[in-house]
Amino acid sequence: MEKLVYPGSFDPITLGHVDIIRRAAGLCDELIVAVLVNPGKQPSFTIGERVDMIRRCISGIDNASVRSFDGLLAQYLQNIGARAIIKGLRAVSDYEYELQMAHMNKKLNIEMETLFMMASLQYSFLSSSTVKDVARYGGDISEFIPEEIIEDVYAKFGRGKDGIS
Amino acid sequence: MEKLVYPGSFDPITLGHVDIIRRAAGLCDELIVAVLVNPGKQPSFTIGERVDMIRRCISGIDNASVRSFDGLLAQYLQNIGARAIIKGLRAVSDYEYELQMAHMNKKLNIEMETLFMMASLQYSFLSSSTVKDVARYGGDISEFIPEEIIEDVYAKFGRGKDGIS
Amino acid sequence: MEKLVYPGSFDPITLGHVDIIRRAAGLCDELIVAVLVNPGKQPSFTIGERVDMIRRCISGIDNASVRSFDGLLAQYLQNIGARAIIKGLRAVSDYEYELQMAHMNKKLNIEMETLFMMASLQYSFLSSSTVKDVARYGGDISEFIPEEIIEDVYAKFGRGKDGIS
Amino acid sequence: MEKLVYPGSFDPITLGHVDIIRRAAGLCDELIVAVLVNPGKQPSFTIGERVDMIRRCISGIDNASVRSFDGLLAQYLQNIGARAIIKGLRAVSDYEYELQMAHMNKKLNIEMETLFMMASLQYSFLSSSTVKDVARYGGDISEFIPEEIIEDVYAKFGRGKDGIS
Amino acid sequence: MEKLVYPGSFDPITLGHVDIIRRAAGLCDELIVAVLVNPGKQPSFTIGERVDMIRRCISGIDNASVRSFDGLLAQYLQNIGARAIIKGLRAVSDYEYELQMAHMNKKLNIEMETLFMMASLQYSFLSSSTVKDVARYGGDISEFIPEEIIEDVYAKFGRGKDGIS
Amino acid sequence: MEKLVYPGSFDPITLGHVDIIRRAAGLCDELIVAVLVNPGKQPSFTIGERVDMIRRCISGIDNASVRSFDGLLAQYLQNIGARAIIKGLRAVSDYEYELQMAHMNKKLNIEMETLFMMASLQYSFLSSSTVKDVARYGGDISEFIPEEIIEDVYAKFGRGKDGIS
Repeated sequence: MEKLVYPGSFDPITLGHVDIIRRAAGLCDELIVAVLVNPGKQPSFTIGERVDMIRRCISGIDNASVRSFDGLLAQYLQNIGARAIIKGLRAVSDYEYELQMAHMNKKLNIEMETLFMMASLQYSFLSSSTVKDVARYGGDISEFIPEEIIEDVYAKFGRGKDGIS
Repeated sequence: MEKLVYPGSFDPITLGHVDIIRRAAGLCDELIVAVLVNPGKQPSFTIGERVDMIRRCISGIDNASVRSFDGLLAQYLQNIGARAIIKGLRAVSDYEYELQMAHMNKKLNIEMETLFMMASLQYSFLSSSTVKDVARYGGDISEFIPEEIIEDVYAKFGRGKDGIS
Repeated sequence: MEKLVYPGSFDPITLGHVDIIRRAAGLCDELIVAVLVNPGKQPSFTIGERVDMIRRCISGIDNASVRSFDGLLAQYLQNIGARAIIKGLRAVSDYEYELQMAHMNKKLNIEMETLFMMASLQYSFLSSSTVKDVARYGGDISEFIPEEIIEDVYAKFGRGKDGIS
Repeated sequence: MEKLVYPGSFDPITLGHVDIIRRAAGLCDELIVAVLVNPGKQPSFTIGERVDMIRRCISGIDNASVRSFDGLLAQYLQNIGARAIIKGLRAVSDYEYELQMAHMNKKLNIEMETLFMMASLQYSFLSSSTVKDVARYGGDISEFIPEEIIEDVYAKFGRGKDGIS
Repeated sequence: MEKLVYPGSFDPITLGHVDIIRRAAGLCDELIVAVLVNPGKQPSFTIGERVDMIRRCISGIDNASVRSFDGLLAQYLQNIGARAIIKGLRAVSDYEYELQMAHMNKKLNIEMETLFMMASLQYSFLSSSTVKDVARYGGDISEFIPEEIIEDVYAKFGRGKDGIS
Repeated sequence: MEKLVYPGSFDPITLGHVDIIRRAAGLCDELIVAVLVNPGKQPSFTIGERVDMIRRCISGIDNASVRSFDGLLAQYLQNIGARAIIKGLRAVSDYEYELQMAHMNKKLNIEMETLFMMASLQYSFLSSSTVKDVARYGGDISEFIPEEIIEDVYAKFGRGKDGIS
């Protein structure tokens, strides 16, 4: 596979995301992490912050890069000459939603394929939103998100790393 | 079966809804599409717009008509002398939610029955909200919603049909 | 709806089945309980026993009758001039299997519709096979199967109703 | 088991919650109903109202009490010297979300255990939000919530119990 | 909780089972591992072998013991004066089946409660049958079953631990 | 991706399998269809018949070939120098089982990745076993399995293509 796109919100990137990036990068020539600019949602981090945080977390993976995109994923794939995306899967409700999106995307772009990869066991319970809930109360998030962005996350939610005790 | 009610938001009606209406109408004397007036939600189309769009899409189905209703579905059924509703099913999460509502409705109206029909395969990934996402970016929605309302949907989301290229 | 077919193994019929028959019969002119002759399976009761037990259990439902059938359900529907079947649903795995069969049947007979009805709460955990497990150990099955066939079931599994104490 | 904690929003408490409290209290020395103060959500009832309503509903269960808590559940457990929580389960999507939370909580507090108990069949379709939908339209909620708080719920949603007819 | 029963086939016991036993034993006074004698199934290990293997694996857990039982679990609970069982949960299909059994058991013994505990992440993919498939081909099972019974499992399936290379 | 392995029983190969093979072959340099020799199962077609049927069905796909394998898939991948397998997904129960196997395989071979691809909508209800049920009764299987093997399947089940009428 030449190009593989890993789309998402990454608000913020977690260790579960990094694990998928690392494993997927091992299966293709070029992995593009594509951060969705969604005007209809209120993310915790701006698109610039999210791209920057990802860049720092994947700097050690040679064939991986990060970009933001706007509009329909199915069109974005065509624009950059990619044919396949990769998605991590955790639970059954993930799966159903992703399957629905995969069929919708194939309808919009008949050439497009969606590949799924299971989350590693140790990250199978992780989501950006639960990590933020923990951070909000000053809980320890060091096993959930990459070291490179821990301070960014605590800073956003206004408590220091030592806020628990 | 004499009267069968097909309740929903229809915000807007999709080809998946029309498929259910056509198939369900073939199994009863009279099919009533019942559009819920839900004061707690912010629909994209007004109740009047939704009823009007449905009317145009089902004009070729003799025993189908459209109405709006306000309040509890279980009471509405009694008011109009109907005993059964029909619901289309796609994924597992649809199913669970619908099952929960079916039991709740039976508790509120012991006579009421909920019948389920699977969505046809080609529409099994369709939902009003994903169609709106596509329209919002000017994507091609002609395989997702009835021809009769394509212009209405593009008009609502402020882009022309040719907005993609 | 004129004719509605309720297919199954009914090995043996449970109170959950009778509940579906009663509710479905209220929605159509004629309900046909269709017992599948499946040469590939080893039922506990012969096809004759199953038909006879059902007949006794539904004798009070005027527009319901029982027949056995052999071969593909999709063809059987055509043979008897029926267009729709009804299936009871309990859990998610029921639902998936039934959905798969519904799509397969529609492919084999484009006119055929599968309607689903949720099992009543009090029977939502019941299955013929768990009832047989209970009977096998002489457990009390009087809340699980119709009064009319309790003796038949105990007789088949070789213990009397009082076998527990 | 010495202490068992039953956490939730209880906005408001339903008969399904009371059923879990009663059954769980029978399995431990002390059951603590713990109402989450979630600054990120807009509950229908204040934390004070919710605690008060629960207190009235559980006054007959000797070893059960109610408290509110703020912050991470995993930390709260440690603070009060409890090791296990109990959660009621209804559908598959409940289960997945709860499983995800259980793993997250175990990561935050390695000693913590989450026990699950199935909702009794007659309450397996109940949720606080659907009860509020019924109350909003003046529907009969007497089979869904404890007698002790029916007036509170109708009062909150501005209609009398006889508002239907 | 005084007595807690952990029922199952344990054909053979895995590290996932031992994890549940250890965690559940920490929540009660006495944990009884109850091995089902099921005449209708063909287990790989005899009931005696299974009981013996479990005994060796749980010898370090003071308040845990193992017994076999025959007949209905709901009756067995009454016979030994226990009120609750514990079950480990992995995937959605586990959950549905276990929920069905829990409701059936409650119907047979109104006092009986079924508690569920999620499998630890590292064992959430483990089952006795997949372990046997691995052993059958001489694969390495040392991360799947307790050290105490590895030789028993290899012996049963006729290959040595070094059979792979 | 260099080598991608598509493992299965293929008893017999269906149009759903061919669709996955075609789409997956477009994403890698070499696609190997790997037919499992499972001594514990009683397939309808011998391993030789299955390999031969697949060969005929994929002759038009240049970079796809078929082989049989014996033993653990995780070891087979290592033997042939492949790192990833592809699996088609249909329903939720597929997904859970496949996820369990993917984790088991990763445990046995840390380098191994399992990629999932959704079945195309028109084949999402297809399985080898339901196709065989249809063939057994002389039903029309021409929309379910490749033209190249229709006669083989009818021959195995002893009825001619015209057996229905």
